[in-house]
Amino acid sequence: MNFCGNCAAPVIRRVPPADDRLRDVCDSCGTIFYENPKIVAGCIPVRDEKILLCRRSIEPRAGFWTLPAGFMENGETTREAAARETLEEACARVEIGALFAYLDISHVSQVYVIFLAELVSDFAAGAESLEARLFQENEIPWPEIAFPSIEVALQLYLEDRRRGAFGTHTVDIKRRVGEKRPARVDSEGAAGR
Amino acid sequence: MNFCGNCAAPVIRRVPPADDRLRDVCDSCGTIFYENPKIVAGCIPVRDEKILLCRRSIEPRAGFWTLPAGFMENGETTREAAARETLEEACARVEIGALFAYLDISHVSQVYVIFLAELVSDFAAGAESLEARLFQENEIPWPEIAFPSIEVALQLYLEDRRRGAFGTHTVDIKRRVGEKRPARVDSEGAAGR
Repeated sequence: MNFCGNCAAPVIRRVPPADDRLRDVCDSCGTIFYENPKIVAGCIPVRDEKILLCRRSIEPRAGFWTLPAGFMENGETTREAAARETLEEACARVEIGALFAYLDISHVSQVYVIFLAELVSDFAAGAESLEARLFQENEIPWPEIAFPSIEVALQLYLEDRRRGAFGTHTVDIKRRVGEKRPARVDSEGAAGR
Repeated sequence: MNFCGNCAAPVIRRVPPADDRLRDVCDSCGTIFYENPKIVAGCIPVRDEKILLCRRSIEPRAGFWTLPAGFMENGETTREAAARETLEEACARVEIGALFAYLDISHVSQVYVIFLAELVSDFAAGAESLEARLFQENEIPWPEIAFPSIEVALQLYLEDRRRGAFGTHTVDIKRRVGEKRPARVDSEGAAGR
């Protein structure tokens, strides 16, 4: 950020009084611009034990497969955001169920919040998708999954389905130096204790 | 927002192409400014069945009691944010446990994410607190709790403690027209099914 959104004066990157972090600060009108992590809301739409995935038509990771998920907007609940993203990306209606995965990705300041969901309509490729398709477990295109967060959510879902009980999973997804894929750092969830 | 943070030209509030929401848009340099919900990270610090609360020294709700909680910052995990806020507001160290409450407050575009926690140090009033104190269940100052989200988290915690098992709770906190206090709309959590 170069200029103040309030008064158009140049902003300075410095630590404001009574703070301990660098912020964009306007010394002309006094506005401090805070930046905070974003929530990516999504779901795992399932019908007849098959999982609905979308193949992305846009960057990043165009051509790769993902669960319906996207940035939560102001004024909606996380469940509403997950259902809206599913409608936009897969032209599909879902009944959103329990909170399934809470995935911190601190190196990109994002949190993925993924719900269980039941697919209750037809589906088709939305504006940001090349195609939408139902996958059985043995059909999931693991090397073509768009993001580590989606891979982790799918793995956890399949593990829980095998053991016959779905928990709420909290996972930190860390980038390791020199490794291409981030590591999954599981943490104790309430349901697993 | 009045001016573009990138080029200082005036911004216009309109729906960008291929979007369906009003955004601040700069027609001079093409930047679109998105606003998204913020995460408030916090915890329920407990020692010997007593809960650590802080009395706020700052607005909003100065003089009222709250759990340690505050806006999550870029580059940290939600757990790290909850522990940092506890250190800042109550000068206390905690061991963060399981995800306990995920509270959507869509009318203010906030999500409260509250963890179970064990208090493992002394405590004192931090810079934004008038005092910090441990409360037994029958001592909690319900009429002086700062925010509905904190009241809901405390109620759920005490309910779970009575039944002897802690779940992960997802709750929509809605503002009702004409009512002073928002309503609690519980939803099915994974642990409760």
